[in-house]
Amino acid sequence: MDLMGKQFIGYGRSSEGTATFQTMDPSTGQALPGTFYAASPKEADQAMQLASAAFEAYKNAGGISRAAFLNAIADEILALGNALIQRAMAETALPQARLEGERGRTVGQLRLFAHYLEEGSWVEARIDPALPDRQPLPRADIRNMLTPLGPVVVFGASNFPLAFSTAGGDTASALAAGCPVVFKAHPAHAGTCDLVARAIVAAAQRTGMPEGVFSLLFDPGHETGSTLTQHPLTRAVAFTGSQKGGMALYHLAQQRMEPIPVFAEMGSINPVILFPEALQQRSAALATQLAASVILGVGQFCTNPGLILAIESPELNDFLEQLGTAIEVSAPGVMLSAGIRENFSALAAEMLEQKGVEVVGKSKSQTNEHQAAPLIGKVSAARFLENPRLHEEVFGPFSLMVTCKDVRELSQIIQALPGQLTGTLMAEPSEIENYEGIVSLLRNKVGRLVFNGVPTGVEVGHAMQHGGPFPATTDSRFTSVGTAAIRRFVRPVAYQDFPDALLPDALKRNNPLNIWRLTNGEWSKS
Amino acid sequence: MDLMGKQFIGYGRSSEGTATFQTMDPSTGQALPGTFYAASPKEADQAMQLASAAFEAYKNAGGISRAAFLNAIADEILALGNALIQRAMAETALPQARLEGERGRTVGQLRLFAHYLEEGSWVEARIDPALPDRQPLPRADIRNMLTPLGPVVVFGASNFPLAFSTAGGDTASALAAGCPVVFKAHPAHAGTCDLVARAIVAAAQRTGMPEGVFSLLFDPGHETGSTLTQHPLTRAVAFTGSQKGGMALYHLAQQRMEPIPVFAEMGSINPVILFPEALQQRSAALATQLAASVILGVGQFCTNPGLILAIESPELNDFLEQLGTAIEVSAPGVMLSAGIRENFSALAAEMLEQKGVEVVGKSKSQTNEHQAAPLIGKVSAARFLENPRLHEEVFGPFSLMVTCKDVRELSQIIQALPGQLTGTLMAEPSEIENYEGIVSLLRNKVGRLVFNGVPTGVEVGHAMQHGGPFPATTDSRFTSVGTAAIRRFVRPVAYQDFPDALLPDALKRNNPLNIWRLTNGEWSKS
Repeated sequence: MDLMGKQFIGYGRSSEGTATFQTMDPSTGQALPGTFYAASPKEADQAMQLASAAFEAYKNAGGISRAAFLNAIADEILALGNALIQRAMAETALPQARLEGERGRTVGQLRLFAHYLEEGSWVEARIDPALPDRQPLPRADIRNMLTPLGPVVVFGASNFPLAFSTAGGDTASALAAGCPVVFKAHPAHAGTCDLVARAIVAAAQRTGMPEGVFSLLFDPGHETGSTLTQHPLTRAVAFTGSQKGGMALYHLAQQRMEPIPVFAEMGSINPVILFPEALQQRSAALATQLAASVILGVGQFCTNPGLILAIESPELNDFLEQLGTAIEVSAPGVMLSAGIRENFSALAAEMLEQKGVEVVGKSKSQTNEHQAAPLIGKVSAARFLENPRLHEEVFGPFSLMVTCKDVRELSQIIQALPGQLTGTLMAEPSEIENYEGIVSLLRNKVGRLVFNGVPTGVEVGHAMQHGGPFPATTDSRFTSVGTAAIRRFVRPVAYQDFPDALLPDALKRNNPLNIWRLTNGEWSKS
Repeated sequence: MDLMGKQFIGYGRSSEGTATFQTMDPSTGQALPGTFYAASPKEADQAMQLASAAFEAYKNAGGISRAAFLNAIADEILALGNALIQRAMAETALPQARLEGERGRTVGQLRLFAHYLEEGSWVEARIDPALPDRQPLPRADIRNMLTPLGPVVVFGASNFPLAFSTAGGDTASALAAGCPVVFKAHPAHAGTCDLVARAIVAAAQRTGMPEGVFSLLFDPGHETGSTLTQHPLTRAVAFTGSQKGGMALYHLAQQRMEPIPVFAEMGSINPVILFPEALQQRSAALATQLAASVILGVGQFCTNPGLILAIESPELNDFLEQLGTAIEVSAPGVMLSAGIRENFSALAAEMLEQKGVEVVGKSKSQTNEHQAAPLIGKVSAARFLENPRLHEEVFGPFSLMVTCKDVRELSQIIQALPGQLTGTLMAEPSEIENYEGIVSLLRNKVGRLVFNGVPTGVEVGHAMQHGGPFPATTDSRFTSVGTAAIRRFVRPVAYQDFPDALLPDALKRNNPLNIWRLTNGEWSKS
């Protein structure tokens, strides 16, 4: 632990800055061992220069080498053993089983991207062969594939200290794409970041990657993040966190001489619609299911169901009573940091002060100063529509029930909502076909539609979409979870009339990589 | 021609504004028949409201209906007959054969998108079927496809009054995606825009499209364009034109409460590298080929080769002599508008005033006040590297030859260049393998690499990339030419655990549309 707290600049460690900070155990408020140095602007520049210098070699290293690097990162993370889990527990108050599961997700994600690179079809090769006899003009041979953008700056998220942090989905997809990564450590779990960075650097050295393919910088404030986002060598930014933080980076990036994409995932309230027959058939089951989703992980998920919508009915009253009871008997939990807990308390209290908001249920357990108590409020559609404050996210174990008079009010609410990561339909299959209009309107607002499930739990696969219309994310055309996350960091390049020997293997005439390619608009491996 | 000059608001015509303008024949400077009204802010709002109202029905109309609409637009454009060609000739001074060819490209592009919709695989269906027995947790069924963003604002380009204007590639790809279009007519060829808008509206009515799927607004200035870009119902903007215009729209869009994507294609200088053996083998042929590309269409293409790079040699001197002669005997041409011609003269003169710039050749023909004379300059790599003014585009028949001492200087120049639409290699296949580093560096800067061809001539196909790193375009991850242009106006939506009856046809279990789908990472039609 001797070097803990120094910047990772390529393969070296550095501590030029004078300001230092420590991380806290959120369940006690006590400082943890390890002193972290705030990076200096010079260190940030060094990391970007090294990343840029590494780009040419890393880009051309090929998918198989990059896959070996990603698999080595997974191995090195597992080799950190229990020390990693213990440090993450201490810094986040998340339970051991959750963090072990999250480590599994992180390692699985790295291996999935490694497999994706080995398989090779991810470059989306598109081929329009020459038509020398076409009239009035011959057609040239055009071949197109994805190529990496260049160095990417990644910001760690507070709520997933492993899966959305140092070696999380953003880092894994950028490295898979062929982009060097400069990572800004999250100050609340800086020790966890330090350990994982060691694993990445060890893996890079072991697999012969160019120095600078990964660097990590510490900073308790915003200066290093701003410097990295504005650095002329940065080609893209990935961020998961608050709307305020995401939009600050977004505007910095757009005001550069050369604007760059910022992929900020800024959370949402994830509306859940309860349809009449479903309420009639299973109001108790729905109450149990939703209560569990609201309080899961002390509500600290960007897919937490923060808004529940339904049309007034006696069955809705039953549901609310059952939901209230489930929340009353639920346990309070320690949140990720004192700041997050204070923010939750303030915002939840503000919600209850809004006109027409009543309490459906609140945890009755004793709550200490480090804990947050689950809470569910209720308001009429009319009040909700006139008060945009009620449309905002309360990060933590909170949800707002909105009761509608009829389908028209329900439609109005959906149309008034800002963009969302997810939208959920709790319905009987027999009734949902009567609500096609509702489903179509909801689709305009979300990145993922869930049927009779809960929005929490984001599968890492080929078909996942984790990203929705603004302000859920800054760019709804991309996902930050799943293999398609790699697309954020690449762009297509076309090769016109190239001799075969000069083409990348993915585009050569005899398809030596045996990958799926779109030839004249048809997919094949031939 | 009675209604010419009034706004197209859905299926109606309107002229609420008080300011009017006319279009000019650039070869005479004389005003042409027809008075055009500048749109009022209220008219701009009406167009956007109608577009937004049309979105729900148009989005759900399905690919086959939208294909019928696009084919009908193509038919209606052809039905305009010679009147369209005559008006476009009068407004742009482009020759008849070129405009007939451009009409063919425009109609072909619409039919290609129609075919693309009929085939149906463009929605990129991705399917990860449920794994109910997976440990430790079952996997949900996740199905993903592309969905349209909403109303798109399109700006017509001056240099392609048909193929990049009212019914050009941006409009065609947005309509194909399922997005209503509000089109800002280019004031220099407003009459051509008016005629094509009639064709689109007639096609929309004939094929039963919702009113508002297309509107067109006139404005000689920038106000209507700004209003449309800032309008809260606008979901994306497509623009082809100057860097100043594109960046103004980009910044307006990023400063909105809800930022939206702006796809601005802002031109570039399209470097052409002449390699030693190629110069040795065929300096005369290269001179003829490049001279023709520089003067083609009076140099009014965004892929015009504005920069020629080579290492000093006796053969390069031969090439320059031959290039100079070819330019000296070339004819001057009328440019698209008086403004464009004045701009060309001023910028070309400014280039010649830069330190170290010499003239290689200039058209010796008499040039009248409406014409531009082709011109090629020459400068050393050292001078070029120290003067960023020399890296900028001169829109028109101009190119700058930069002579390098060695490969190192050539590499430095490529690294110093801003982003480009294209980069061209003139080389013998035997020598180019010695320059892998040069090709790799050039690839970082361009959207399309051309081998032994000219960059002018952009094929409309599946593999084309027309879009490069900033400032060539605002978003290098997308193309504005070819079928992939549709991707600018769509985003993925995932469906989790949906009953089959509720899924869009593209995602249903038995693949009723018989389209290519990515299931568990493999493409198939089953």
